[in-house]
Amino acid sequence: MGSFKGHALPGTFFIIMGFWWGTKSILKYVYKKQTRTCYLSSKTLLRRAEIWEGVVSIFMALTGIVGEQFISGGPYLILYKDGQWNQLLGWHHTTMYFFFGLQGATHILCFTTNFLPLSLSKLMLSNAIFVESFIFYNHTHGREMLDVFVHQLLVFTTILTGLVTFMEFLAKNNVLLELLRSSLIILQGTWFWQIAFVLYPLSGSPPWNLTDIENKMFLTMCFSWHYASTFIIIGLNYTFITWLVKSRLKKVCTSEVGLLKNAEREHESEEEV
Amino acid sequence: MGSFKGHALPGTFFIIMGFWWGTKSILKYVYKKQTRTCYLSSKTLLRRAEIWEGVVSIFMALTGIVGEQFISGGPYLILYKDGQWNQLLGWHHTTMYFFFGLQGATHILCFTTNFLPLSLSKLMLSNAIFVESFIFYNHTHGREMLDVFVHQLLVFTTILTGLVTFMEFLAKNNVLLELLRSSLIILQGTWFWQIAFVLYPLSGSPPWNLTDIENKMFLTMCFSWHYASTFIIIGLNYTFITWLVKSRLKKVCTSEVGLLKNAEREHESEEEV
Amino acid sequence: MGSFKGHALPGTFFIIMGFWWGTKSILKYVYKKQTRTCYLSSKTLLRRAEIWEGVVSIFMALTGIVGEQFISGGPYLILYKDGQWNQLLGWHHTTMYFFFGLQGATHILCFTTNFLPLSLSKLMLSNAIFVESFIFYNHTHGREMLDVFVHQLLVFTTILTGLVTFMEFLAKNNVLLELLRSSLIILQGTWFWQIAFVLYPLSGSPPWNLTDIENKMFLTMCFSWHYASTFIIIGLNYTFITWLVKSRLKKVCTSEVGLLKNAEREHESEEEV
Amino acid sequence: MGSFKGHALPGTFFIIMGFWWGTKSILKYVYKKQTRTCYLSSKTLLRRAEIWEGVVSIFMALTGIVGEQFISGGPYLILYKDGQWNQLLGWHHTTMYFFFGLQGATHILCFTTNFLPLSLSKLMLSNAIFVESFIFYNHTHGREMLDVFVHQLLVFTTILTGLVTFMEFLAKNNVLLELLRSSLIILQGTWFWQIAFVLYPLSGSPPWNLTDIENKMFLTMCFSWHYASTFIIIGLNYTFITWLVKSRLKKVCTSEVGLLKNAEREHESEEEV
Repeated sequence: MGSFKGHALPGTFFIIMGFWWGTKSILKYVYKKQTRTCYLSSKTLLRRAEIWEGVVSIFMALTGIVGEQFISGGPYLILYKDGQWNQLLGWHHTTMYFFFGLQGATHILCFTTNFLPLSLSKLMLSNAIFVESFIFYNHTHGREMLDVFVHQLLVFTTILTGLVTFMEFLAKNNVLLELLRSSLIILQGTWFWQIAFVLYPLSGSPPWNLTDIENKMFLTMCFSWHYASTFIIIGLNYTFITWLVKSRLKKVCTSEVGLLKNAEREHESEEEV
Repeated sequence: MGSFKGHALPGTFFIIMGFWWGTKSILKYVYKKQTRTCYLSSKTLLRRAEIWEGVVSIFMALTGIVGEQFISGGPYLILYKDGQWNQLLGWHHTTMYFFFGLQGATHILCFTTNFLPLSLSKLMLSNAIFVESFIFYNHTHGREMLDVFVHQLLVFTTILTGLVTFMEFLAKNNVLLELLRSSLIILQGTWFWQIAFVLYPLSGSPPWNLTDIENKMFLTMCFSWHYASTFIIIGLNYTFITWLVKSRLKKVCTSEVGLLKNAEREHESEEEV
Repeated sequence: MGSFKGHALPGTFFIIMGFWWGTKSILKYVYKKQTRTCYLSSKTLLRRAEIWEGVVSIFMALTGIVGEQFISGGPYLILYKDGQWNQLLGWHHTTMYFFFGLQGATHILCFTTNFLPLSLSKLMLSNAIFVESFIFYNHTHGREMLDVFVHQLLVFTTILTGLVTFMEFLAKNNVLLELLRSSLIILQGTWFWQIAFVLYPLSGSPPWNLTDIENKMFLTMCFSWHYASTFIIIGLNYTFITWLVKSRLKKVCTSEVGLLKNAEREHESEEEV
Repeated sequence: MGSFKGHALPGTFFIIMGFWWGTKSILKYVYKKQTRTCYLSSKTLLRRAEIWEGVVSIFMALTGIVGEQFISGGPYLILYKDGQWNQLLGWHHTTMYFFFGLQGATHILCFTTNFLPLSLSKLMLSNAIFVESFIFYNHTHGREMLDVFVHQLLVFTTILTGLVTFMEFLAKNNVLLELLRSSLIILQGTWFWQIAFVLYPLSGSPPWNLTDIENKMFLTMCFSWHYASTFIIIGLNYTFITWLVKSRLKKVCTSEVGLLKNAEREHESEEEV
């Protein structure tokens, strides 16, 4: 992982998953709000999507593990060599990926069998994120100030994400909590990219001064901007999906929607009180 | 912001908003308690007030941003100049104001369209306050002891406020949580004024010794007194509004109130059990 | 407060209040569980007790304030003298007592008027305890190791108590949370006594070595024992009150209780599922 | 406790209890899900098991106390000897065991009498675990880096376990929270064994270098693996019990189950919405 690619890969994974989770939550919410009659028909579709989500999670985790272990001088699954630990940083990353893979497997089990509570998947996600925080927290011994700082922000994000996921697990079906989690996951993804650019500048760009306090103050602000940009991504996604669902519903069941719109307005005004 | 005015301005903004939020919460609560029949008539009024609140938020945020960027040698929207970061402290403040502006915009969207859940506005407020905490936390490198301490207290207040706002977002319609948030926002506002007086004493008054531990101990206590004074402000406001609503209702619908008062007493005794 | 009496006084206050709060919670719970018919008759009595509780709170707070300000060379209400702060430690304690007095006043207002939500009293209690934590946290600059440690444990207890009180405020009518708070308040009281004995040994006993790590380790354990002893106090109180209510009810309304006992057993088994 | 056995003993206790708690939770959950008619018949059995659980807890606590006090040069119940504290570390462990014994006693009282709320047992468990964290936190003065680190991880686990137990106490009947607690308790148990192997290597194996940062990084990862293994233990247990209950029910009441399976499927699809 000690390279540009090693940070860009998980960054991309997190952005994809965050975007997909956001999309899923918005779809469910908008659908439910617009219509109650048509909702049940899309259930089988949703269940299939959930299973695919699990498969993609496992695939990502395996890619990460293989990349860490076998590419560019990784530990090749050897933990202890010549009287000392063999490339523990690589093993750390392998462990993190493993927990995300476990979450993917649980997700599939939850949606294919009847025996497990559905919220188990959320609990495992929260677990995987907390384990990631824990390992990153103990990951940066003896590095330079800015290097430590950008990883601290990563730990900070993951702890927040883990907490929000855990809250979701307790308070089911709160769409805003789900979107908050998505935005935090996307934030984590874009921040991985930022770390890649800071620590391993592309050929041509000058290296960052890792001991300059001014850089730290800039990155503090930069982190906030990343966060703001996740709002914009999710906001645009929300607008697009709302428009899509509305226009599609108009075609399918015009008469029903007419009736439902009134119901909806009523519901809205109740909520307001 | 490195001046008396730069601290007095946000201080005033927070006091105004805190006072208005307190007033709104009390009005809603007292109104609901006194009567259920007359309540619905004032709904359109309330919705209009909410939209105006959003407009005022955006206006305040813009004022702050313009003030930070263009007044008395600000960065003039230039982030990087002559091989180094350009006035990052000013940019920090701009970022904070931006998030409060974003909250204002969301607030307007929530109350003018039907597509967004109303509690999104509260979530964005909590976000804006947390971002403020985060930036202030990384804001005071290499300053003197007392300067750091008064800003730490600010961070402390904002973290608490953010937590309370988040709780409000989860547990809707709890009037006391809303008042607690108002009092913390007012506290933040008056504390900004206190910081202004401590760090930039008005001409005539002697400067504070920024390394004296006695001053730190005094400011600890002073902070508690500020907090106590916010209770008094909100308490007086509560008394005034209760009196106002009661006397106004007496004129409008005397007969109805007679009936409702009994219902109210009953409700009260139920709550007690 | 820098004396044996200065610590024994608040200690005694907290023990009394903790014991009374425990008694009140147990009485309410046992009464409610044993009978639903007789309960309402004791309501006026309870309301009167609540008002008295507020009066006693205010009295205790005033005693504390007067003691801190006017006895044995206190600041005599003078904050600034001869170009420096006048006895800030005394003023700190005054501020703490003031917030508890405020809570007492709110408690009375809540139970004499109809305009305030009853849970406001609990919120103010939580506030008073948090302010106490905050001030104690900034209270021990430049003292010796063991002195700092025993005060840290105090801060630790008060933060926990504040959190539990705040939870009570959110989740109303949970008897075990109320008893947990009582036990933490009693713990705080007995710990004040322990501090008095450690820092101001009575004449005859040898002084404690304030820099010995062994003493710190003993006090850690001692703190746990204090906590265990609060369980025993509350347990005995619980047993006594249960017995009292049962025997008193047997006399008053024997036939009714016969019917209710079955209902109770049913309820119990429902809870179990 | 300063020996291999002193760490292996509590480790074994925690593994046993964690496994039993997991089994109990799964049994209850699977049983409830499969059938509602047969459930009540097993209630008496469950109550008896709860009482036995309390007895075993007390027995374990007593074993621990006796072991700490009287075996291999313990303090023999003498707290203060020759002008100094007598073996405080042993006394620390005694105190921890005592709180777990107290929990056992409360557990028995809750399930044999009608006077106590059932969730008191959970509150006492949370208390016992928090006291354990508190004592361990103040337990490792002046030890070597790795020794401190493995105990910090213990404190970390116990604080998390205490929080989860407290949440369980507030949000009753959440099977996943119960399993999370079980897995954390098992983690604590296996981690005690790990500590034993690290600090007191069995004869033949080389001692660990207690100041090597590489060892710390390995143990970080190792801790995560322990956590993952608790999932596997609980997962296997879950699968086994589900299979057992299903096959046993098939024999006993085939016709009923046929009816219930449909109800179950319906319930499942409701949950999904």
